[in-house]
Amino acid sequence: MKGIAVDPKTAEPPRDNREAILIAVASVIARRGIRGLRVEDVAAEAGVSAPLLYYHFGSRSGLVKAALEHASERAPSSALRKPSEQNGYEAVEAALLAELGDDPNVRANAVVWGEASASAIFEEELRSDVKRVTEAWRANVAEAIGEGVKDGSIRGDVEPEETAEVLITLVDGLCSRWLGGTMTRDRACELLRGALSQALAPTT
Amino acid sequence: MKGIAVDPKTAEPPRDNREAILIAVASVIARRGIRGLRVEDVAAEAGVSAPLLYYHFGSRSGLVKAALEHASERAPSSALRKPSEQNGYEAVEAALLAELGDDPNVRANAVVWGEASASAIFEEELRSDVKRVTEAWRANVAEAIGEGVKDGSIRGDVEPEETAEVLITLVDGLCSRWLGGTMTRDRACELLRGALSQALAPTT
Repeated sequence: MKGIAVDPKTAEPPRDNREAILIAVASVIARRGIRGLRVEDVAAEAGVSAPLLYYHFGSRSGLVKAALEHASERAPSSALRKPSEQNGYEAVEAALLAELGDDPNVRANAVVWGEASASAIFEEELRSDVKRVTEAWRANVAEAIGEGVKDGSIRGDVEPEETAEVLITLVDGLCSRWLGGTMTRDRACELLRGALSQALAPTT
Repeated sequence: MKGIAVDPKTAEPPRDNREAILIAVASVIARRGIRGLRVEDVAAEAGVSAPLLYYHFGSRSGLVKAALEHASERAPSSALRKPSEQNGYEAVEAALLAELGDDPNVRANAVVWGEASASAIFEEELRSDVKRVTEAWRANVAEAIGEGVKDGSIRGDVEPEETAEVLITLVDGLCSRWLGGTMTRDRACELLRGALSQALAPTT
């Protein structure tokens, strides 16, 4: 599948074997999904032995959880935790649009995220991890919405926690349709911009 | 997994073998997902032979597509096509909330739908079917929104097509979090009600 694998040109060089394995697992999940994931394929792609992989991650399940954590740390929304010159509205818009980014690594991370959510229906042990990274995402977005309410770029009557939860759930749905090829990336971005404006923009 | 299997007490009796197979496939997908689907398990659950199943559906892929079509026909939103005494807003709200319905059959259909969307990333042949049923859903909701604009229950500046697309994508995201156990059904319904009010309710 073209364009889904992690692009070695734009990926940061792996710090070590652990990092190499995490990049490889995202790439394998992006091609075949979590349920098609075989530890041997990840080891081969990372250029390490299967025992080394088990040494670092304990089990196939540990590997999947680490991939989700890694995708969460690298998610575009994590930029919301850094100081920025944007106002609150601009920061929220930029971070959520970036989740639909036209970059193989962003796409691979989005597939890992979507696959983990979809697999949580059948693998109960994944649920607490999916819940935790989703909560962290919601908290980041809610904080930025709160900043926007303070700086006047977001309507004063917007409730940050609830609005953040609706917006990230919408982004998950848009990502799912984009990745599944039933909506173009451009259309997903356009719908997201419209939804953000309706949910957050001050009335003029 | 408790509560996910199709409930024989509320399911309508199968018209024939084809219908029995379609009910069985939804039940098997609800328990194990599309990627865990084995034709023999469906045949056993439907009480038919595997050759009879292949006679009706041609292949495993044909069976999955028929399950998606069946879920689409039985989706609560299909009620929007029938005449109703509700105004447009009430009809849209009732139909979308019903997608998060507390009924094993609704839940099984929601899993089939979510699984088909998630699998479309990896199975290109599923995409046109997912796209078609999603379009039909969007068209039903858009028409009901248009009715609401006409009867005054929905704001006059609401654009039915675009708003319907955002709302069904949000419902997909909420269903995914509900089914994956990372959001309660009550919370998903509450967020949906709030989003509908913001997107559609006339300003008072």
